[in-house]
Amino acid sequence: MCMTRDEIIRQIRVGEMKSTTSGLAPEYVQANLVVVPEAYAADVRGLCQRNPVPCPLVEELAPGAVEPRCAPGSDLRTDLPGYRLWIDGELKERRHDVRDLWRVDFVAFLIGCSFTFERALVDAGYRLRHQELGRTVPMFRTNVPLAPSGRLHGRMVVSMRPFPAESVEGVRTVTRAYAEGHGEPVHWGDPAQIGIADISRPDEGDPLPLEPGEVPVFWGCGVTPQLVTIESKLPFVITHEPGSMFITALRHEEYATTGS
Amino acid sequence: MCMTRDEIIRQIRVGEMKSTTSGLAPEYVQANLVVVPEAYAADVRGLCQRNPVPCPLVEELAPGAVEPRCAPGSDLRTDLPGYRLWIDGELKERRHDVRDLWRVDFVAFLIGCSFTFERALVDAGYRLRHQELGRTVPMFRTNVPLAPSGRLHGRMVVSMRPFPAESVEGVRTVTRAYAEGHGEPVHWGDPAQIGIADISRPDEGDPLPLEPGEVPVFWGCGVTPQLVTIESKLPFVITHEPGSMFITALRHEEYATTGS
Repeated sequence: MCMTRDEIIRQIRVGEMKSTTSGLAPEYVQANLVVVPEAYAADVRGLCQRNPVPCPLVEELAPGAVEPRCAPGSDLRTDLPGYRLWIDGELKERRHDVRDLWRVDFVAFLIGCSFTFERALVDAGYRLRHQELGRTVPMFRTNVPLAPSGRLHGRMVVSMRPFPAESVEGVRTVTRAYAEGHGEPVHWGDPAQIGIADISRPDEGDPLPLEPGEVPVFWGCGVTPQLVTIESKLPFVITHEPGSMFITALRHEEYATTGS
Repeated sequence: MCMTRDEIIRQIRVGEMKSTTSGLAPEYVQANLVVVPEAYAADVRGLCQRNPVPCPLVEELAPGAVEPRCAPGSDLRTDLPGYRLWIDGELKERRHDVRDLWRVDFVAFLIGCSFTFERALVDAGYRLRHQELGRTVPMFRTNVPLAPSGRLHGRMVVSMRPFPAESVEGVRTVTRAYAEGHGEPVHWGDPAQIGIADISRPDEGDPLPLEPGEVPVFWGCGVTPQLVTIESKLPFVITHEPGSMFITALRHEEYATTGS
């Protein structure tokens, strides 16, 4: 937890760190990655504009570019702990490096992440049990439809953090300010209301049992484009591995003034 | 259909026009109205930011202001054909003038409207049957949850226009460009998939029977904040009468370059 961002990125780049980035370099904005051929870029851009809660757009790179403006010196092909390759809507391969796959027509999108507000929650005195237990935050597919964009359609994915019932309003207030990191929750309480059948079995990440008196609280999640990839049967997409984010060089304070 | 915007506004202001504004002054952006006490303004602003498809924000006025920047010389208290007054989430009164209700702490929001893209559809050769029949476009409450914002929560309201099945992709393409007017559809086909039980019985506007071979096409609708008002039991809200919009002085071309 004491490593600097540079040290973390260096370890990730050489393959020495393959774990969740939750809690790492907490002063920096983290981001989900979606890479598509240029012919799909307008559809992804529209998906983000129309669904800013699950898909808050942090940056769209130029075709072929791998060094984002939000992280000079970084390389999006090597600097995330894990990648997924999707072909025709199916998960084909997991990797730690996608340099050999990259093409000049690839357009990378960085999408905000709820890890962004986790530091604010900890600073405000709330416990984050997935961090305490060293787990990846649990993520669930919902039945909440997205606003379609061109060839893209699908349903929202959410992350879940449990909190005592009396903390929910405080947690909502803290996270509301972080619009670039999904903002306030989309739902809290009964998981069935958003189509989650079994709260003990997440679709991504690790299970996190509720303790007595706790309420599950759900935020929009940047893994949503991966479900869109599946449901829209996209021909070719590269994403991050859920929980293994890109750590930008944007500090939260800067981002709040210069960002979306 | 040949009256100028100024003539239409003048007739509305003196109470001589109380009908739907669909098809009137089609070169101008039309807008839904939501007025709340200042204490609720941040929640409405957040609702629009988090749900830009049903609630694309055209303008937020300063507290107490009635003359929007998008329509110099206009008065939001008199220049819409119809208003609704909501108390504690219930529709209390319908009016054609709300001057005597206005308070210095009221904040007015103008939210984009699908009438904005109707001209583009007509120009592209698509028939708009509600206009041909002189009816208000039918609107339906759905089961699609909004992203909550502070004290505001609810479900999306949609407008419906029927089109032949083979026209749906073309209609999607035409309306996609009008992000300030809800953009492309949120759904087409089976109404039950978004929680509409009976397509022949709209919640607002007039019924519009489907003809053989036609598919119902649904767009996000700026009446959504009225359902939010009901579901969130807001203490005091003024809105427009569905279908009776505010006609801004923004031309679509200008808006496309200077707008959101």
